[in-house]
Amino acid sequence: MLERIELVKPADIEARSMEIIRQELQGETWPEPEFSIVKRCIHTSADFDYARNLCFSKDAAKIGVEALKRGASIVTDTRMAASGINKKRLAEYGGEVHCFMDAPEVAEEAARKGCTRAAVCMDRAAGLSGELVIAVGNAPTALIRLFELIQEGSIRPVLIIGAPVGFVNVVEAKELIMTAGVPYIVPKGRKGGSNIAAAVCNAMLYQK
Amino acid sequence: MLERIELVKPADIEARSMEIIRQELQGETWPEPEFSIVKRCIHTSADFDYARNLCFSKDAAKIGVEALKRGASIVTDTRMAASGINKKRLAEYGGEVHCFMDAPEVAEEAARKGCTRAAVCMDRAAGLSGELVIAVGNAPTALIRLFELIQEGSIRPVLIIGAPVGFVNVVEAKELIMTAGVPYIVPKGRKGGSNIAAAVCNAMLYQK
Repeated sequence: MLERIELVKPADIEARSMEIIRQELQGETWPEPEFSIVKRCIHTSADFDYARNLCFSKDAAKIGVEALKRGASIVTDTRMAASGINKKRLAEYGGEVHCFMDAPEVAEEAARKGCTRAAVCMDRAAGLSGELVIAVGNAPTALIRLFELIQEGSIRPVLIIGAPVGFVNVVEAKELIMTAGVPYIVPKGRKGGSNIAAAVCNAMLYQK
Repeated sequence: MLERIELVKPADIEARSMEIIRQELQGETWPEPEFSIVKRCIHTSADFDYARNLCFSKDAAKIGVEALKRGASIVTDTRMAASGINKKRLAEYGGEVHCFMDAPEVAEEAARKGCTRAAVCMDRAAGLSGELVIAVGNAPTALIRLFELIQEGSIRPVLIIGAPVGFVNVVEAKELIMTAGVPYIVPKGRKGGSNIAAAVCNAMLYQK
């Protein structure tokens, strides 16, 4: 069995993976930086649905890359995405990752208001200063609250990565956030997740 | 648009999601605790492929649940999985999560040996005492090294969750680890990832 293992140097595994993904996309391509984002989402999931479902508002990926290079910070509703985002690269540009999910006062406020912790996290994001990329990888309720905050004029993110995953209000929350008038990157439908949210962030961070 | 949002209390969202998953599986079922694992992998990815690709060796899920309840620890090759595993629940049973990916000496050893950090992490796991569940959510090289360590008699995990994701040696490494003579839970094929590795662990931790 071991003889079937392809010998690839550790440093070359990612490049080889991206080459295979490009081959299997059979000539289908996107402009950059969109293409890097599509490929990295497929790389993290082995799911070619991301070649179909990823929606970019006009120049969204370019806007995101430029904002991160100017030192924008990232707010996410999931610890796993916070863990997966390349914080070292982000810090080189001057940004940091904020995730408020673990704060006990967030849980208390959510219980008091009868909403999710993820929704309270968006209220917290509205209190931050500086440019923000909001990367939602778990809760559609975060996107719904974010939409309300944008409508109220309480927050104006540079870019929204709307990648919650699941079965309850996920499709609807994504469609809603695409009408908020803010640049977005959204995998339409039920799919998404913390790995996808982190992959979109990292693909932008890795742009030359 | 907001009127299309289904009103579900935060505490009920997961149960409602699981109900939808069960409905869409159209009567297809598994014994427990396998069914909980299949459903949680679909819940975390919105990808029904996990109803097809998850392979369980005989009693693997039951063996995993019992080991965790006895206080087995979990070793993983990904920080994101370490972040996603319910460490509070694990600690209640006496276990903890080990992830050696960030240790500078692991990076040094990998560079010196020309292997991946994930492979070195498996060497580190072999130095741990007590019962271990190994949850691989990223690197096929971790599974290949784990196979070698089992062959040498250097480690004997209670259960292997073999869920690396990707395009280079992933399929082959999964097939290899299924021949190691150790109980396994493996999503066959290219799919997997840190979200899946964490979902399998959490589904077992949440068993009554």
